[in-house]
Amino acid sequence: MASSLLTRQLAISLQHNLRVAAPGSRYISKTATKTVSEFEYDAPCMKTTVPGPKSQELLRQLGEIQNTGAIHFFCNYEESRGNYLVDVDGNRMLDVYTQISSIPIGYNHPALLKVMTDPNNLSAFINRPALGILPPENFPDKLVESLLSVAPSGMTRVQTMACGSCSNENAFKSMFIWYRNKERGFTSPSEEDIGSCMINQSPGCPDLSILSFMGAFHGRTLGCLATTHSKAIHKLDIPSFDWPIAPFPKLQYPLEEFTRENAQEEARCLEEVEDLILQWRQKGKPVAGIVIEPIQAEGGDNHASPDFFIKLRNIARKHGSAFHVDEVQTGGGATGKFWAHEHWGLEDPADIVSFSKKMLTGGYFHRDELMPDKPYRIFNTWMGDPSKNLFLSEVLNVIRREKLLDQVTRSGEVLMQGLYALQRQYPHVLSRARGQGTFCAIDARTDATRDSIILKAKNKGVFLGSCGERSIRFRPALIFKEYHVHQLLNVLNDVLAEHK
Amino acid sequence: MASSLLTRQLAISLQHNLRVAAPGSRYISKTATKTVSEFEYDAPCMKTTVPGPKSQELLRQLGEIQNTGAIHFFCNYEESRGNYLVDVDGNRMLDVYTQISSIPIGYNHPALLKVMTDPNNLSAFINRPALGILPPENFPDKLVESLLSVAPSGMTRVQTMACGSCSNENAFKSMFIWYRNKERGFTSPSEEDIGSCMINQSPGCPDLSILSFMGAFHGRTLGCLATTHSKAIHKLDIPSFDWPIAPFPKLQYPLEEFTRENAQEEARCLEEVEDLILQWRQKGKPVAGIVIEPIQAEGGDNHASPDFFIKLRNIARKHGSAFHVDEVQTGGGATGKFWAHEHWGLEDPADIVSFSKKMLTGGYFHRDELMPDKPYRIFNTWMGDPSKNLFLSEVLNVIRREKLLDQVTRSGEVLMQGLYALQRQYPHVLSRARGQGTFCAIDARTDATRDSIILKAKNKGVFLGSCGERSIRFRPALIFKEYHVHQLLNVLNDVLAEHK
Repeated sequence: MASSLLTRQLAISLQHNLRVAAPGSRYISKTATKTVSEFEYDAPCMKTTVPGPKSQELLRQLGEIQNTGAIHFFCNYEESRGNYLVDVDGNRMLDVYTQISSIPIGYNHPALLKVMTDPNNLSAFINRPALGILPPENFPDKLVESLLSVAPSGMTRVQTMACGSCSNENAFKSMFIWYRNKERGFTSPSEEDIGSCMINQSPGCPDLSILSFMGAFHGRTLGCLATTHSKAIHKLDIPSFDWPIAPFPKLQYPLEEFTRENAQEEARCLEEVEDLILQWRQKGKPVAGIVIEPIQAEGGDNHASPDFFIKLRNIARKHGSAFHVDEVQTGGGATGKFWAHEHWGLEDPADIVSFSKKMLTGGYFHRDELMPDKPYRIFNTWMGDPSKNLFLSEVLNVIRREKLLDQVTRSGEVLMQGLYALQRQYPHVLSRARGQGTFCAIDARTDATRDSIILKAKNKGVFLGSCGERSIRFRPALIFKEYHVHQLLNVLNDVLAEHK
Repeated sequence: MASSLLTRQLAISLQHNLRVAAPGSRYISKTATKTVSEFEYDAPCMKTTVPGPKSQELLRQLGEIQNTGAIHFFCNYEESRGNYLVDVDGNRMLDVYTQISSIPIGYNHPALLKVMTDPNNLSAFINRPALGILPPENFPDKLVESLLSVAPSGMTRVQTMACGSCSNENAFKSMFIWYRNKERGFTSPSEEDIGSCMINQSPGCPDLSILSFMGAFHGRTLGCLATTHSKAIHKLDIPSFDWPIAPFPKLQYPLEEFTRENAQEEARCLEEVEDLILQWRQKGKPVAGIVIEPIQAEGGDNHASPDFFIKLRNIARKHGSAFHVDEVQTGGGATGKFWAHEHWGLEDPADIVSFSKKMLTGGYFHRDELMPDKPYRIFNTWMGDPSKNLFLSEVLNVIRREKLLDQVTRSGEVLMQGLYALQRQYPHVLSRARGQGTFCAIDARTDATRDSIILKAKNKGVFLGSCGERSIRFRPALIFKEYHVHQLLNVLNDVLAEHK
């Protein structure tokens, strides 16, 4: 029966006493409100080293089909709950990576189970429509109820897509189309435009560019990859476009202690942006759009100030380039606001905002002017998946009902204070603690040290991710409470105590 | 209750007498076996012109959010059954387009409902994993049971992806990586490779190319789009790569009546392919791979002979280029074989075969040599969606159990005979009937005539798609039986009789 899993979940123990495993400077949590925890476990519980024997056997099996070099372990998703990921060997880990930041409200949330057991939803799963030609009856309503209810300031339009890369690819295309329509004075394309585009040549396929930043990650399909500059392994051997790449500010943390130095660094980068826009215009490859993450995530959790982004947005406007804010990793609440760019305090923050991951569906919001002028210009077979919109609606309900953005802010403060304490205690190992909400990171001395900390934490029941050259990134779900932060910090403390 | 829809479906009338609406040269169907029809309707039933008033109101609503220029009407997917698509105004149409060829076994097939109501499957829908790092326990088994059970000859490896474009983008990347590894003699990349790739420059981002064909469609993200040459509206204003584009044979139909002329045309195109490979090598942009559809679908249902593909495959091998067969539209059974390229009779047909659409998940099969040498080279957050693999397993079970490939062959023969009869009867309107299985097409005299036929057929209860400049494409589900063909042909006959 479909309801048995749900029943079983709801029956899980409500006890939440934090088990304190070892003496030392430990965080002891007060009992939290039970909203999240009603369906989850109370602590990690490790039975083998990871990957355990069952994972190893499955790795061998899958190795005959795929390259398995990136796989950590195999999961028992059915037994996973809330913030706890259970593997096939019965190890239960506090998940601070959440499928590369893409699980918004934890595993097997009852609200999502309800979506599955509602008979009105069945046909959305079984009959995947070609949304661009034959949308389902409830499609406009579902867009209003889900995505448009969280539309960034100034945006009333949204286009769904299947994944983050497709979202950015199509956002880029929208910017190119918009830019060329402006150049043509919104007249029809010429015969030469139409003929030359069929054979990949200018003017039909114009030499336009997208300006991106060193350290950026915008996806891995060929268009996106030309704006991605975080790790060589992503880009090596893949043909690319000659598009301008600006330096992203290398700030000193904590930001509030280095305001003057950081402002200088940001000014340097902005100057370079303007130079590059002019250079590429002279090269005959004008910048149709600027794409940027509010926090460079994959590239090492690099922050910049609201002032930087405000000035960058103005540079884009001044030079007639569209401004695309890529919120694929930052969007959906983890910074304590629904969109990270809301922290900038701008009324008019962007022309395009793309999303995926925690939003469960890919896509992008955009301003009216960025809407394609004709059908079939932004198009593909599926253009998203309405079954994902159903889940997103429920996720948004849970975020509102349980005030999860406030939760994120509170947990984020505890996490940051804990990270600051750790780096004071282990200054030869840790540095540059930084974050917004629970979207946090800290640097280890070397990449080897970083990898060792992550490995040891995993075997003590905390699953973490890495980013940049030597950063640990924290990407918990929005239901990550103060006592989960304490569990995380206690394990980090144990790992570092051994490391010392 | 989840089972109510299922119960309601199973209770639907078993009557299948074809309603003959008008006198003339009509096809009268014998009663068919009931396997398919147990859950579907018996005939189209139109209540309004299309789009009807409800669709028009929804178009207005959605128009405030998206460009709706490509939308035909809004659908009631819950009420749709088997080969019949029901719209929001209660119009029931025989669906010969199937969401751009992506509904394998019709709407609301009981086997797919069963997937949804199996509690063991719930967590696959609710907890979408990052497959590349944390796959579910049953992932290797499900791959073996679903995708690998239909792996093309010589291929034991498969990589899932979210959609057709992502599949081809990553297939291209695999070919580039493979090609560069060969060039480097399988040694490590140089410091220069690693440094230059981060800023989009050669040698790290090498000037490699993919050879494609005029009329091809391989997707719409920037890499794929550089190999797509079917319609200007897809490509206009989007920057592209200077990659070689060969002519695809323009054959005369029926193929068997023009073997000599067609062989000459194919030889001309193959000669051009070899010329282009040499030219692009001289340009410093060697051809890492050749990509081709077994039947150019979007581009107008252009066929070529097995001999052409065999020779092309040999040219690829001779020049050290990978050979990528794009089966996104042709794969999954519609040609009467599971993969269209099986019609070529080759033991060694391809290095990569990509799929999506009727396979419900995107992805590609490949030969061992095309496996990336390191993790994270072919990678993204989701790398597919295991819930789609669950549906695919059931689809494959139904295809086997109900011998649907034989059904496709039988229905395809009836369809082709019917199309030949129509073009004999209306030689001033129709020409070039062609097809394999039910993957068929016919040309109208002009694009306006084609569009008018499709519109009139829609209002008589048959939903068709277009392709190329003036072709009607037939893309029914695999459960399209002889009596469905008769319904289709009768409506076409009525439309053409009025047109005369």
